[in-house]
Amino acid sequence: MYSNNSLIDEKSRGVYVIAATPFKDDGELDLESVDRLTDFYLEKGVAGMTILGMMGEAPKLTLEETTAVMQRTFKRVNGAVPIVVGVSHASNRHVKSLASEAMDLGAAGVMLAPVANLKTNEQVYNYYATVAQLLGPDIPICLQDFPQVTGVHTSVSVINQLVDDFEQVVMLKHEDFPGMRKLSQIRQEASEQGRRRISILVGNGGLFLPQEMLRGADGAMTGFAYPEMLVQVCALFDAGKPDEAEDLFNIYLPLLRHEFQYGIGLALRKEILHRRGAISSAYVRRPGPLLDANDHEELGRLMNRLERSLA
Amino acid sequence: MYSNNSLIDEKSRGVYVIAATPFKDDGELDLESVDRLTDFYLEKGVAGMTILGMMGEAPKLTLEETTAVMQRTFKRVNGAVPIVVGVSHASNRHVKSLASEAMDLGAAGVMLAPVANLKTNEQVYNYYATVAQLLGPDIPICLQDFPQVTGVHTSVSVINQLVDDFEQVVMLKHEDFPGMRKLSQIRQEASEQGRRRISILVGNGGLFLPQEMLRGADGAMTGFAYPEMLVQVCALFDAGKPDEAEDLFNIYLPLLRHEFQYGIGLALRKEILHRRGAISSAYVRRPGPLLDANDHEELGRLMNRLERSLA
Amino acid sequence: MYSNNSLIDEKSRGVYVIAATPFKDDGELDLESVDRLTDFYLEKGVAGMTILGMMGEAPKLTLEETTAVMQRTFKRVNGAVPIVVGVSHASNRHVKSLASEAMDLGAAGVMLAPVANLKTNEQVYNYYATVAQLLGPDIPICLQDFPQVTGVHTSVSVINQLVDDFEQVVMLKHEDFPGMRKLSQIRQEASEQGRRRISILVGNGGLFLPQEMLRGADGAMTGFAYPEMLVQVCALFDAGKPDEAEDLFNIYLPLLRHEFQYGIGLALRKEILHRRGAISSAYVRRPGPLLDANDHEELGRLMNRLERSLA
Amino acid sequence: MYSNNSLIDEKSRGVYVIAATPFKDDGELDLESVDRLTDFYLEKGVAGMTILGMMGEAPKLTLEETTAVMQRTFKRVNGAVPIVVGVSHASNRHVKSLASEAMDLGAAGVMLAPVANLKTNEQVYNYYATVAQLLGPDIPICLQDFPQVTGVHTSVSVINQLVDDFEQVVMLKHEDFPGMRKLSQIRQEASEQGRRRISILVGNGGLFLPQEMLRGADGAMTGFAYPEMLVQVCALFDAGKPDEAEDLFNIYLPLLRHEFQYGIGLALRKEILHRRGAISSAYVRRPGPLLDANDHEELGRLMNRLERSLA
Repeated sequence: MYSNNSLIDEKSRGVYVIAATPFKDDGELDLESVDRLTDFYLEKGVAGMTILGMMGEAPKLTLEETTAVMQRTFKRVNGAVPIVVGVSHASNRHVKSLASEAMDLGAAGVMLAPVANLKTNEQVYNYYATVAQLLGPDIPICLQDFPQVTGVHTSVSVINQLVDDFEQVVMLKHEDFPGMRKLSQIRQEASEQGRRRISILVGNGGLFLPQEMLRGADGAMTGFAYPEMLVQVCALFDAGKPDEAEDLFNIYLPLLRHEFQYGIGLALRKEILHRRGAISSAYVRRPGPLLDANDHEELGRLMNRLERSLA
Repeated sequence: MYSNNSLIDEKSRGVYVIAATPFKDDGELDLESVDRLTDFYLEKGVAGMTILGMMGEAPKLTLEETTAVMQRTFKRVNGAVPIVVGVSHASNRHVKSLASEAMDLGAAGVMLAPVANLKTNEQVYNYYATVAQLLGPDIPICLQDFPQVTGVHTSVSVINQLVDDFEQVVMLKHEDFPGMRKLSQIRQEASEQGRRRISILVGNGGLFLPQEMLRGADGAMTGFAYPEMLVQVCALFDAGKPDEAEDLFNIYLPLLRHEFQYGIGLALRKEILHRRGAISSAYVRRPGPLLDANDHEELGRLMNRLERSLA
Repeated sequence: MYSNNSLIDEKSRGVYVIAATPFKDDGELDLESVDRLTDFYLEKGVAGMTILGMMGEAPKLTLEETTAVMQRTFKRVNGAVPIVVGVSHASNRHVKSLASEAMDLGAAGVMLAPVANLKTNEQVYNYYATVAQLLGPDIPICLQDFPQVTGVHTSVSVINQLVDDFEQVVMLKHEDFPGMRKLSQIRQEASEQGRRRISILVGNGGLFLPQEMLRGADGAMTGFAYPEMLVQVCALFDAGKPDEAEDLFNIYLPLLRHEFQYGIGLALRKEILHRRGAISSAYVRRPGPLLDANDHEELGRLMNRLERSLA
Repeated sequence: MYSNNSLIDEKSRGVYVIAATPFKDDGELDLESVDRLTDFYLEKGVAGMTILGMMGEAPKLTLEETTAVMQRTFKRVNGAVPIVVGVSHASNRHVKSLASEAMDLGAAGVMLAPVANLKTNEQVYNYYATVAQLLGPDIPICLQDFPQVTGVHTSVSVINQLVDDFEQVVMLKHEDFPGMRKLSQIRQEASEQGRRRISILVGNGGLFLPQEMLRGADGAMTGFAYPEMLVQVCALFDAGKPDEAEDLFNIYLPLLRHEFQYGIGLALRKEILHRRGAISSAYVRRPGPLLDANDHEELGRLMNRLERSLA
């Protein structure tokens, strides 16, 4: 419906911002803030958006809310940038119906994390292969590799095999930690073995973005609340200026590191977005992290220090 | 609507069977088998039913399907026995809406497992306390203590504190493993400290049912595919015949142990229910365990051995 | 020194009992009970012994104590049966020195569990391959596959690759749970792919011994405190009498299931061995499980029931 | 023997550097580098040292090596600063003997991490309480709270109870992540409830050192390979100059974040110490992380950038 007629593919690059899902102070979905936040991201120059990921609190939405967030975002973006939709779910049937709904609305592709309790390479491969077959070759897939939350470890050989076997696997959200060698191995083995080179966008808030760009990343897929920095850093790397890129990155690193804290990081991110005027409330659905007075003061101090550094 | 006008409470005892959720071979919900399975359980003499638990594949249902299973089961049971409804969910809002729907349909209470990633006693207590306050004192709660799957460990002191602080906490589905000392501690501390004595129904397929009855359990809440044995064992314990009870239990123990296997246990259970004519298909939603030829033959051999033992 | 000149190999079969390590009531090593327990095991007809495994509390021994247990056991066994020695350790150097010491004393081979935090197939393979190369082709290795304790999952393909690459990998202590399909897969893939058929001895107290023998196991490597049952069951399977074997097994199943409880199972096992006169004290080194009055009474009741069943 | 006659206590503050354990390229202990590294740390102005912790590869040393590292370090320090010795072990008997040996050599106290598989508050408390009683009131204890590695979560209430019950619990190595609220809670509850205020030194490489100092930390106990920065930051905080402290900290933050990577972080740390001339080899005992050419180049680039920033 609102597609820009483009799908994600192996050439996708730049910053795909992981969008927060805004709620009102009473926990209800805040669709007006969906508009405002979308505008905020677009103004900061993101190359794409990823909605309904883990940081989008997708598991805490009802199906109706999921649909509402999708529709509102697609309408507001209106084809300006490609949108990837998170479709991870305990049931493959649900993954398929979510993916169909997303693609019908104009999604550029879907992001898929593995279900829990996959242990061996074979189990991880089989999970993804089953879903890839179910979705078919026309729905581009971004593999979400985030073992810190899923508990599932996806080895380089599994990623390689999926790339070899399924043309729709075009992107990796690289979020293993530590994961830099993994990134280099994927690039090296693709090069040496004549394998298709997929798009790799890095997560973890971008904590290692400069190092990862130097190792062959194509950009970032993360939700750091100052996406303009990520955009500029990627642009400087594209312009062949890695040191300028890293100088800029380092100015934001203290705050980025602060937001990196698992769990409470989401509350911090939403609070920054709220303070920056991008959403009307920093509410996180329960059970979820809450900021106390110390957290607020600490965050304010770090934001002030950043502003002074940028001045 | 279909209530027998009774709620679970501290006196609840006997076998509350964990109901499987039947699907057709294509994965669609099989509501006719919901009827058939309900009849099967009632014929076996269960004291109650628990629907939409983990073994009921609740996380793999859509909201519409969840409602359909509830309605069909309540209608078929028609007040014959109390029904507990599993309402565990990542979002407290969802827990509340599921619980309201269940109670409106005539549920006797709700079963609640903790969300993931609760680590300390305080975190576990706070999770349950928040939800208990949200649901209010009129909805009886069965705590589901199943760390093997949830990863959350609920200590005796947390259970005691919840019992002290929330009158609606009336039942424990005891499924920690090993967990027998925990059961004894709860009983002993209630007795010594004048605490309210709640109902404790044991899980894990009933693998330690005789030992747990001797330690003060009030029955079983589990889905072993021969619920008639669980019913008879509990009745024999009630009649003061623990050795006869255990003799009977031991006849079924080889098969019970077989079904105890995590993961594939659900597929085995559904296959037995299918072979016993209680459901039309043994289908488990994907991703999920599948039986192969060896598994089928092995199960058949064990079922034959059981039948010979009973003859 | 005390070797029976035989090493474990692909043909090894029967019951290799996992030996407890006896302590006095004050926690000191009890070498006289090492003798007594060794005699007990030999009298029960075990085909081999495995010392210094996890259930042997090996991580709680000093190096001097480790050496003392080895020497005493080898001397007492005096070549009567092969002895496998557990050599798992955080440091490969230590694995090597332990293995050398064991082989010099006359060990038939070593048992090796992986270190913690190995996640992917590649990591697990590389760990074992590195150690196998370090130990060299002359030291037979039994892979200990016990993810419930180690947290490491070893897939069938990793086991196959190790068998293909290292002739000294001759045995698998099969203890994954549920793990029966794994056992069948190893056998099937060896047969279909012309791979060397290694010895597979099952663990988990023998909870699924009859099923596992039917799936191709060669025996058991476990520490159930009534090893004579395991010995007879294996003999009956060898004699082509699987139903008689399982009938006998089932008589012990209630107690075997009781001992299966992780953690407290070791205390129960030692208490049974103590009651049977095989060791002078049931002491388990701290921190470790302790039996209380309820546990003692419950165990006594189950032992009495077993004796009545056998009478 | 080499004591400075001082024990750690509630007033201990500043930087207690977690000392690496140096090996030669063949994996043998490198005692000459123990001297060199000790000198390096002392020259950088550390307030104390902590040896034989996890980052000191203590689990990979033999008892003889453990003793050798202790003796060499104590001799070289010669009372210049207090030394805390890590004594964590699977067996309480071993903890006691290690602690006795350390104190006899002049240690200022011992550091103790919990054994694995402690789940509830009661289990964690009981573990520490048992060991504290075993060691007695004369051996000061530093609690090591590092759930990312131990898997054990120690709640604020458990820490408080240990402080209340055992006067020898004088220090917390604060390394939970995210853990800043925990730090604030400990301080606040001590203040509000009149509890003894213990020393809190922070870990995780110091990734949040400025924030933690503002929340009431007394310093750092970590092994960042530029300990002079940690020393100066703590001094600036003591001098009431938090902004200057954080400005300095931020210069090192890119490299500190780099070293923060679990697993490979130890190899990076040793490589930096090697490049800085503090140890003769960066060898890490196997199995352990190895740096490849990319890692070396990346590290060199980051070190060069740091040097330019400091110039």
